[in-house]
Amino acid sequence: MNVRLPLAFLSLQFPSVRLLATCSRRVCYSNTALSGVQLQSATRLASSTSACKVVRISSSKPANPTMSVPTIDRDSLDSLLKRRFFFAPAFDIYGGVSGLYDYGPPGCALQANVIDVWRKHFVLEEDMLEVDCTILTPYEVLKTSGHVDKFADWMCRDQATGEIFRVDHLVEEVLESRLKGDREARGETAVPVDGTEEKKRKKKVKEIKAVKLDDAVVAEYEAILAKIDGYSGPELGELMLKHNIVNPATGGPLSEPLEFNLMFETAIGPSGQLKGYLRPETAQGQFLNFNKLLESNNTKMPFASASIGKSFRNEISPRSGLLRVREFLMAEIEHFVDPRNKSDPRFFYVSGTKLRLLSKGTQQEGRTEVTEITIGEAVKTGLVDNETLGYFLARIYMFLIKVGVDHNRLRFRQHMSNEMAHYAADCWDAELQTSYGWIECVGCADRSAFDLTVHSKRTNEKLVVRQTLAEPLIVEAFEVELDKKKFGPKFKKDGKKIEQFLTSRTQCELEDLANELSEKLKITVDVEGVGAPVEIEKDIISIEKKSRQEHIREYTPSVIEPSFGIGRILYSLIEHNFWMRPESDQRAVLSFPPTIAPTKVLLVPISNNEAFETTIIDLSMLLRRAGIPAKVDYSSATIGRRYARNDELGTPFAVTVDFQSVEDGTVTLRERDSTKQVRGTHEEVIGAVRRMVGPESVSWEEGTKGLPPFEAASE
Amino acid sequence: MNVRLPLAFLSLQFPSVRLLATCSRRVCYSNTALSGVQLQSATRLASSTSACKVVRISSSKPANPTMSVPTIDRDSLDSLLKRRFFFAPAFDIYGGVSGLYDYGPPGCALQANVIDVWRKHFVLEEDMLEVDCTILTPYEVLKTSGHVDKFADWMCRDQATGEIFRVDHLVEEVLESRLKGDREARGETAVPVDGTEEKKRKKKVKEIKAVKLDDAVVAEYEAILAKIDGYSGPELGELMLKHNIVNPATGGPLSEPLEFNLMFETAIGPSGQLKGYLRPETAQGQFLNFNKLLESNNTKMPFASASIGKSFRNEISPRSGLLRVREFLMAEIEHFVDPRNKSDPRFFYVSGTKLRLLSKGTQQEGRTEVTEITIGEAVKTGLVDNETLGYFLARIYMFLIKVGVDHNRLRFRQHMSNEMAHYAADCWDAELQTSYGWIECVGCADRSAFDLTVHSKRTNEKLVVRQTLAEPLIVEAFEVELDKKKFGPKFKKDGKKIEQFLTSRTQCELEDLANELSEKLKITVDVEGVGAPVEIEKDIISIEKKSRQEHIREYTPSVIEPSFGIGRILYSLIEHNFWMRPESDQRAVLSFPPTIAPTKVLLVPISNNEAFETTIIDLSMLLRRAGIPAKVDYSSATIGRRYARNDELGTPFAVTVDFQSVEDGTVTLRERDSTKQVRGTHEEVIGAVRRMVGPESVSWEEGTKGLPPFEAASE
Repeated sequence: MNVRLPLAFLSLQFPSVRLLATCSRRVCYSNTALSGVQLQSATRLASSTSACKVVRISSSKPANPTMSVPTIDRDSLDSLLKRRFFFAPAFDIYGGVSGLYDYGPPGCALQANVIDVWRKHFVLEEDMLEVDCTILTPYEVLKTSGHVDKFADWMCRDQATGEIFRVDHLVEEVLESRLKGDREARGETAVPVDGTEEKKRKKKVKEIKAVKLDDAVVAEYEAILAKIDGYSGPELGELMLKHNIVNPATGGPLSEPLEFNLMFETAIGPSGQLKGYLRPETAQGQFLNFNKLLESNNTKMPFASASIGKSFRNEISPRSGLLRVREFLMAEIEHFVDPRNKSDPRFFYVSGTKLRLLSKGTQQEGRTEVTEITIGEAVKTGLVDNETLGYFLARIYMFLIKVGVDHNRLRFRQHMSNEMAHYAADCWDAELQTSYGWIECVGCADRSAFDLTVHSKRTNEKLVVRQTLAEPLIVEAFEVELDKKKFGPKFKKDGKKIEQFLTSRTQCELEDLANELSEKLKITVDVEGVGAPVEIEKDIISIEKKSRQEHIREYTPSVIEPSFGIGRILYSLIEHNFWMRPESDQRAVLSFPPTIAPTKVLLVPISNNEAFETTIIDLSMLLRRAGIPAKVDYSSATIGRRYARNDELGTPFAVTVDFQSVEDGTVTLRERDSTKQVRGTHEEVIGAVRRMVGPESVSWEEGTKGLPPFEAASE
Repeated sequence: MNVRLPLAFLSLQFPSVRLLATCSRRVCYSNTALSGVQLQSATRLASSTSACKVVRISSSKPANPTMSVPTIDRDSLDSLLKRRFFFAPAFDIYGGVSGLYDYGPPGCALQANVIDVWRKHFVLEEDMLEVDCTILTPYEVLKTSGHVDKFADWMCRDQATGEIFRVDHLVEEVLESRLKGDREARGETAVPVDGTEEKKRKKKVKEIKAVKLDDAVVAEYEAILAKIDGYSGPELGELMLKHNIVNPATGGPLSEPLEFNLMFETAIGPSGQLKGYLRPETAQGQFLNFNKLLESNNTKMPFASASIGKSFRNEISPRSGLLRVREFLMAEIEHFVDPRNKSDPRFFYVSGTKLRLLSKGTQQEGRTEVTEITIGEAVKTGLVDNETLGYFLARIYMFLIKVGVDHNRLRFRQHMSNEMAHYAADCWDAELQTSYGWIECVGCADRSAFDLTVHSKRTNEKLVVRQTLAEPLIVEAFEVELDKKKFGPKFKKDGKKIEQFLTSRTQCELEDLANELSEKLKITVDVEGVGAPVEIEKDIISIEKKSRQEHIREYTPSVIEPSFGIGRILYSLIEHNFWMRPESDQRAVLSFPPTIAPTKVLLVPISNNEAFETTIIDLSMLLRRAGIPAKVDYSSATIGRRYARNDELGTPFAVTVDFQSVEDGTVTLRERDSTKQVRGTHEEVIGAVRRMVGPESVSWEEGTKGLPPFEAASE
């Protein structure tokens, strides 16, 4: 291989390898197919790596049959999340503010662990340049980027009540309720549109009327719903008129859709004259630092910057808990690449990864079936535009599986042309299925050269890559030359404007002018700011095609942007890892992978007896030395109750200290999902934990090999 | 010991131990004195811990003579920080916005590592409850907390030019410049007031006039400067009048000091009617969640919550780079404690830690000398108010030393009464000395029960601890009883107001009313909202002292708040670790401790030859397996230049691959500060790095024991 790959590149060979090598129940879904060459190359590295920790501890959690999605009991989950303070509405003793949430200790630790995995998976493994830019952003920057003019949702207002609705959500909800009413009228059980559990969010439509619709109307509504994210404001307005959509509560009329800018505004400095916004994305800070970042990378291309931080969107009517909030943590990557060459040498190593794709075409036909194919095939057939985009889709997939997302509840959906952000050229969302439906959790957009171009134009600061050409390029182009001695005196103060006009013509315009000049021996042009049309004679101007050699190619890179909504990922993976033990009183469990579990080990003295103190201290030491976060539960609750509490917190292991421990120095080790227990010395048990929690990430069977099983009296 | 200590407590014994056990040049400063018992207890734990990684790799960096502070060449440092993109003004291609900075890759990694140490040192070791609350905060919350009314600086305006000054900074700067002019007039060399290098910040006072002052005036100015942080707005106004302080640029008059609120304002939601602010501190979110946190801690007291996140202050005139910015990362702890018992069982383990203290009294005498005593002594003599406060001062000290702060450039300064925040009862700042002077980097305030009390009162939500008393308490108190049958008909609609008035009287007022009632057989009271004075006869009311048993004690906890400005700590520790190699062409080095160094190891193939590829891959694998962040430098620069670049980035180790490596499998390992090199096999060298970088944190001598020194041709 002649291309010199960055160090990080080496690690990219891990994920596929590990997926093959340690194929567990969950990981099986990934169906990673490696070619012979890949396999060879992969195997050579397999033993020396610890990058991919997708291995799940085996468990008695019932396996999901392929493609069927378990329904979850959201009331139980909500109650658990509240009781254990994963998160809660912010300012709730003040009545709360919608769209704002605080994370409590387990939620906060989960978030920190997911961020830690993200940083290792992307920033460290791929040698990205991480930056931390400010949230406060002056007006000019966001005016240039297009956010001041275009970063808006459509709202409509009920003039009578003052109530404000987000138009696309209102249309969606009203049509869904009518379809539901239709099914009731037809005597069908109310099967939700896409197989998810009935949504329980706070609804505008309180009452479903059992009214039968024409078959044609049903088909029309279903087609609209499949495309609901793709309508413009005026189109939504037409839908409201056509389908008579009014205030569901009062039946009163609503205003036409109006644009509402989603940025929070503030003023910077004591004079109050510098208008600013809270950033709506972390991307702009990365673009503005492009030259410094390119320099930091020793001017080598391609490269990526990355940023983790809060962004803000003043949602019209936030709903669905963590899924639509006004302040949220993002992790964004800006991968800068030559627009003429979006191939990627690393693509080879991920091309066998199978993804579930939902294309633009399928959606435009009003359908939602996914196609499961390898990313290699998707790029070859043009379904995914280029290797770099494909590479990142595969890497996003691997990250999501690593933090505990269910393969069967993950799909990549391509944006339809009119739903894309104002800057995007192509875009795929990683969507996770939850009880609220399919949720966009990661966007992966090709922003082309849009941002660098507009900022450069606005600031006159070049944001470009200069590439030394192996062979000089011969460039032919029309060039304007002026005889300054005659030009200056003739046009006086207008001279500068006229010159600027001439030098900013396109090649096509210059060709026309050259023809005009050779025909009429003069040209006549209209220059803005100069009163009359300007005539320039042949003795003053020449316009000719000339050829010159270029040794440097200067270009504005394209940007591929994987953008992660951490809160949405957190909530979705909580749902994906939530289940109830059927056998024992519907006890809830959160089966987080050990890597992201808030606490890894719970130390449980079987009673409050002081005799256990020394043992607890010794175990704590061993855990601390191994760098494993642990907690002691000294409470007087029964062992079963304490285990149950930690199942709810997603703690994968418990080490129990009993009277036998004091006598013979052995303790039990319990696995959360299976509730299996084994017994061993302090060193044996902590050693097993280290192998299962640490970089090796071995399975329960492998980790506890040789330790005798222990039968607990009861859970 | 009867008190059951949390698991984390165990680790608190580490720091002192490690300080003793691994005393290196820098660590020697800490002078930790342990008693015999402590030592015994400490030694028992010493080998099993990895909590304190204060050990510095030994180096040829010239040791600072005790108490003398090295001056630094700030131009060189600034140029390095810019060249390597540690940080840079945000939006600089748009001309920048003062007080806003972006962190580039090395600054961002440094920040992430400092945060990581902070989280381990405080949250994990001490079992704190970490939360992540929103930045957006509604008006009502900050109105209640006092920030809307009192979180302000004093500014004054030049009506002629529109220029705005922060008053305390202006007074300080003008008086300093006059003192400097006086010294010049006296023919003295301009020795700065407190021994720091001359400040280079952007100044309002451009020109120093050599004017001799009276000795009395000099003394007065010096006294003012020593107390400059303690003046109120009106007092500053008086100083301006008395000392004729005007616009230094124009000589024009300035307005009286006006309060300017430092919070950024915004509007939440589409209606624009919910006023909000960007939080000025992370503390309020922690207070509002008090009940949930207490519940998460199984209602046990004392406990601490912690939070890491951005806060915002709309500074009047930001200056001094990272030291006074408008958007900054904070890490805050709220330790909730019984106001009647601020002793702390953990204090015992830190009491021997020697701190450099600057008391309130010393400052009020206009002096700035520090006293170096153990925190045990400081608490015993009442200099530091209580054990909990003292415990946190010691822990803050240990954290700062761990991340690389110089003991001799660290002092704890007590706030003077009138400079304390509106909520604080006592406050000590950890200040770090930089070329900008002494900078407050950590505040440690006793906020008493202020915040919980006001929020509770405003929301009618109890924010209290309920403690079951071992023995019931007999409480004697005056109680009011009304004969409702007579009271209601008599006072009708005023009844409720009168009753509320009576039940909200203090014990003292009730005693007076009881006396009045027994003397006059009636009481006469003025009730707000009731027109005439109200007379209540003895047949309607009784006010008597009664005794009752209480089994539960209900109290609002006090809060001790260590609050860390991460950006200020970062900048200060960069200065503390910056030096120039005198011997070789003034090459700059940043001697970060390995724990916080942005990259730990640089892999350097001696040339671009492809023969080195296999070796680089093998070393990368070993490093990755050991979890050590590394980079490869493939550039074609000379070895010396590549070492120099990484000295500037603070990378502690370099592994160099040469032609001998390909032949015999050995590589060299270079230490940044000493530039010493040794040679060994891949496993030997990476093993040595792991011991020096990892939890063991051994010294260079210990880590590379047995490896033969290697003489490099040149650096």
